Amino acid sequence: MPRNREEVRKRLQWAALELFRERGYEETTAAEIAAKAGVTERTFFRHFPDKREVLFDGGAAFIEAVTEAVRDAPKTLGPWDALFFAFDSVKQMFIENRPFTEPRQRVIASSQALQERATDKTRALTAALASALCERGLTVPQANLASQMGMATLSHGVSAWFNDGSIDLGEHIVRAFQEARDLSSSNLAIAKGTRRTQRIQEKAKLT
Amino acid sequence: MPRNREEVRKRLQWAALELFRERGYEETTAAEIAAKAGVTERTFFRHFPDKREVLFDGGAAFIEAVTEAVRDAPKTLGPWDALFFAFDSVKQMFIENRPFTEPRQRVIASSQALQERATDKTRALTAALASALCERGLTVPQANLASQMGMATLSHGVSAWFNDGSIDLGEHIVRAFQEARDLSSSNLAIAKGTRRTQRIQEKAKLT
Repeated sequence: MPRNREEVRKRLQWAALELFRERGYEETTAAEIAAKAGVTERTFFRHFPDKREVLFDGGAAFIEAVTEAVRDAPKTLGPWDALFFAFDSVKQMFIENRPFTEPRQRVIASSQALQERATDKTRALTAALASALCERGLTVPQANLASQMGMATLSHGVSAWFNDGSIDLGEHIVRAFQEARDLSSSNLAIAKGTRRTQRIQEKAKLT
Repeated sequence: MPRNREEVRKRLQWAALELFRERGYEETTAAEIAAKAGVTERTFFRHFPDKREVLFDGGAAFIEAVTEAVRDAPKTLGPWDALFFAFDSVKQMFIENRPFTEPRQRVIASSQALQERATDKTRALTAALASALCERGLTVPQANLASQMGMATLSHGVSAWFNDGSIDLGEHIVRAFQEARDLSSSNLAIAKGTRRTQRIQEKAKLT
């Protein structure tokens, strides 16, 4: 039998992940998760408000760690460097959680309801990052742009790491930041001005 | 009295927007929106599945227009340029809808429930853009990164335009793309390699 609160939470999470993978998210009930973890359904609901939330434990701790890292980043760093610094600082959390988060990713992809919850979690983290960047002197729109781009880049790096764990997560994050830079530096609007864009659009209409 | 289906929808949308602004989103019922629009509550629910959805009409048409523009972008354009081309192509839709979408933005910001729905809509659009970019030969991870960064950049440009309408939306979009480029080109990981990052992190620990 589970001995303490933390252990019960962990057992519930792993039981949920296994059942969702075997039978599908929709087909699994909270009661079944509880039974597999060796506790009552009531205990399940003492730990988690609903069946979805059981997959997202630890989100608050991650938000706290990464926003604190943004605040702790050297004052001389610009917003993008501060985000890189912060993501690099918390990479150990990703490494420790990988046995759970990697299979979880596929379960989330299989369910609309779970995707919505994951999107909410990402939104909360993005808003927290933006708020931390504002404390570094950015305007709200600048902070929103930086945090959204940063989150997309982090997520790209983590996915690449899930696909290829033979390379360090830190190196995957560096590569993701390089890809983001390379992607956005190729840009009609900037390289040639809008007149070229207009010409291309006119040409596209003709063909 | 409203004459046709399209007119009824428009009346319901404007009635909802006005009531949400005056009284708040939570405090307004679908019945009140219907009454203000001069129709029955039953008619409201023939047009919209719930009170939230009334603010997001036209989302599907926008997704169709912008993804079609990504597909129509000249074959020679890379993903970022194709997104710029697409956003620039549909800017007239933003201009026509501004009287509705600008005040709507503030109503959305006032409600958690509306923010969640707005996030879902953005997620659907981001996924559709990624899918259109895949058709241009990108891998799924590349397409996801490009579409997420593109959406953040577009949203930044549109917000700037809401704040300063004295400058064309097209020019705001160009500036947003420039900001995204400038932001992501300043980057520890790339400029100096990870060793410098490590030194900075060690220094940060000491202070």
